[in-house]
Amino acid sequence: MSMTTISEAQRTADLKKTAEILKGADNILILTHKSPDGDTVGSAFALCRALIAMNKKAKVVCSDELPEKFGYLYEGMDTCEFEPEFIVASDIASTDLMGSVLAPFADKVGLCIDHHPSNGDYAAFTMLDPASAATCEITADLIPLLNVEIDKKIAECLYTGLATDTGCFRYSNTSSRTLRTAALMIDKGAESAAINKKLFETLSRARMDFERMALESIEYHFGGKAALITITKEMEEKTGVSDSDTDGIPALPAKIEGVQAGITLKEKKDGGYKISLRTGSTLNASQICAKLGGGGHAAAAGCRIEGTLEEAKKTILEAVGQEIAKVYGGSEK
Amino acid sequence: MSMTTISEAQRTADLKKTAEILKGADNILILTHKSPDGDTVGSAFALCRALIAMNKKAKVVCSDELPEKFGYLYEGMDTCEFEPEFIVASDIASTDLMGSVLAPFADKVGLCIDHHPSNGDYAAFTMLDPASAATCEITADLIPLLNVEIDKKIAECLYTGLATDTGCFRYSNTSSRTLRTAALMIDKGAESAAINKKLFETLSRARMDFERMALESIEYHFGGKAALITITKEMEEKTGVSDSDTDGIPALPAKIEGVQAGITLKEKKDGGYKISLRTGSTLNASQICAKLGGGGHAAAAGCRIEGTLEEAKKTILEAVGQEIAKVYGGSEK
Repeated sequence: MSMTTISEAQRTADLKKTAEILKGADNILILTHKSPDGDTVGSAFALCRALIAMNKKAKVVCSDELPEKFGYLYEGMDTCEFEPEFIVASDIASTDLMGSVLAPFADKVGLCIDHHPSNGDYAAFTMLDPASAATCEITADLIPLLNVEIDKKIAECLYTGLATDTGCFRYSNTSSRTLRTAALMIDKGAESAAINKKLFETLSRARMDFERMALESIEYHFGGKAALITITKEMEEKTGVSDSDTDGIPALPAKIEGVQAGITLKEKKDGGYKISLRTGSTLNASQICAKLGGGGHAAAAGCRIEGTLEEAKKTILEAVGQEIAKVYGGSEK
Repeated sequence: MSMTTISEAQRTADLKKTAEILKGADNILILTHKSPDGDTVGSAFALCRALIAMNKKAKVVCSDELPEKFGYLYEGMDTCEFEPEFIVASDIASTDLMGSVLAPFADKVGLCIDHHPSNGDYAAFTMLDPASAATCEITADLIPLLNVEIDKKIAECLYTGLATDTGCFRYSNTSSRTLRTAALMIDKGAESAAINKKLFETLSRARMDFERMALESIEYHFGGKAALITITKEMEEKTGVSDSDTDGIPALPAKIEGVQAGITLKEKKDGGYKISLRTGSTLNASQICAKLGGGGHAAAAGCRIEGTLEEAKKTILEAVGQEIAKVYGGSEK
């Protein structure tokens, strides 16, 4: 099931079917993906709150601990104990992403609600809309079909997923429907200013130090068409950053004017380097990383290179340089 | 004329009156404020394009050169020579902000369209809505009243002002109307993804270097409740940053978790330091800066301190420390 758009009529029909399935279900377990983000957590708790408002039993589970910053999405909810009868996956593109704790549910998912074009079609029914910027954009249209009023708490869950999956409405996946859905959530009571401040305008001291060190490592190649930063284990230890603190670092070098290839080398715990490559419109990151055994999207891809830092740099720069030479000609270094 | 809200009925009536004034005018000169930003430029060119579509003569002027990054707002427009008969000010809160070139028009403004609560009421008629996040949010509602269809170019002008004045819909001034207005601009053809990439995801190499140096200068005080960065003339010379490259730097220290006072000291060309202070909800930046002869808003204010860097630091840290001690007690340093 790999698709990039569905018709509005199909979307409406699928939403109706999804609502009918949920109306007929009870004792519902809602799964979120591992390394949980605002969209999986927001869409899951929005749906959970709606199901509870319908006097059903429902709860949200995750293989990993939920990040503290998302605490406002579930604070004040009663825990609800029951034997699960129906399994919903929210924002989970493939069963691999369920993580170890939820793996036993992989072949038992009755309904999947998702927006990833790569969705693996593992559920009995999948409500998939790849044109939605976030799963929350789908769930926002689903909840009224369950005859549940979107209250302030549900609105904050949905706003969170819309905002986090779009870089606060900055990325190219943001459509006019995304903005109108977010507007509705504000009208329903979502305290968007406080949420934005918490999620987008607050950085830990460790992250600030880490970002400075990452910027100190920057190197330019190929006449400024490539910028490369290096993240070492030592930098992580020195600053004490957590995994979520390092979000967005690989996007930094690609933001620099004139840079067509933003490369981040991250030293792995077990040796070797994880490479993140972000490209401008003239280069294809996925093609470059595929040559090195990796993959991804046209604008963002990754691979792994064994060896020392110097070897890893040489390997990725050669692969990037070949593509730059193809597009721009010459062999400037 | 200092106000924070107007009623919807008042807004509608004022918009109608504004449209009537413009319908009756021709040979229209549209003023923008000095140090032009996306909202003044976007709202001015949106209006200018609408007036030209009405077969009127209109042009936009500014005391300063328009930043190159806003070139897409006016590319392809014919220059139009005429003797101005009617003057409109777009997004200009006070006549001081017109700059030296436009100063002669200060007492000749027939119409001002603005969203700043501090608007100085210098025009014959002022269309002021302080609840709008941007002047573009007002102009977007005005243009249909001129019976002009919002085309792709007008939509891009208006989207630009909405996005730049809200930090791409992140700041607390973003309302549901702001988001719905932006959604309409996307539906009218605005290439929002390309605009966002250009305005929010592209930094010059000089800016990247400058930001790294600013982060290297960071100091924490009062148990991490204050963070201070220093910008020197040397840093500006070394990196070659332009003024617009340094936008957003004073917001950096206040983003750090736990920081209630984010302080930026910027060395002035003629000696002494310009202080920018950003505060969290527990401290009042304006009150602190007022003690040092400056002023501003509760969350963002400034002042000037003469003397050496050490003297300037001591002065601002004492003023901040007194407020921290009042709110949090003790005298931790």
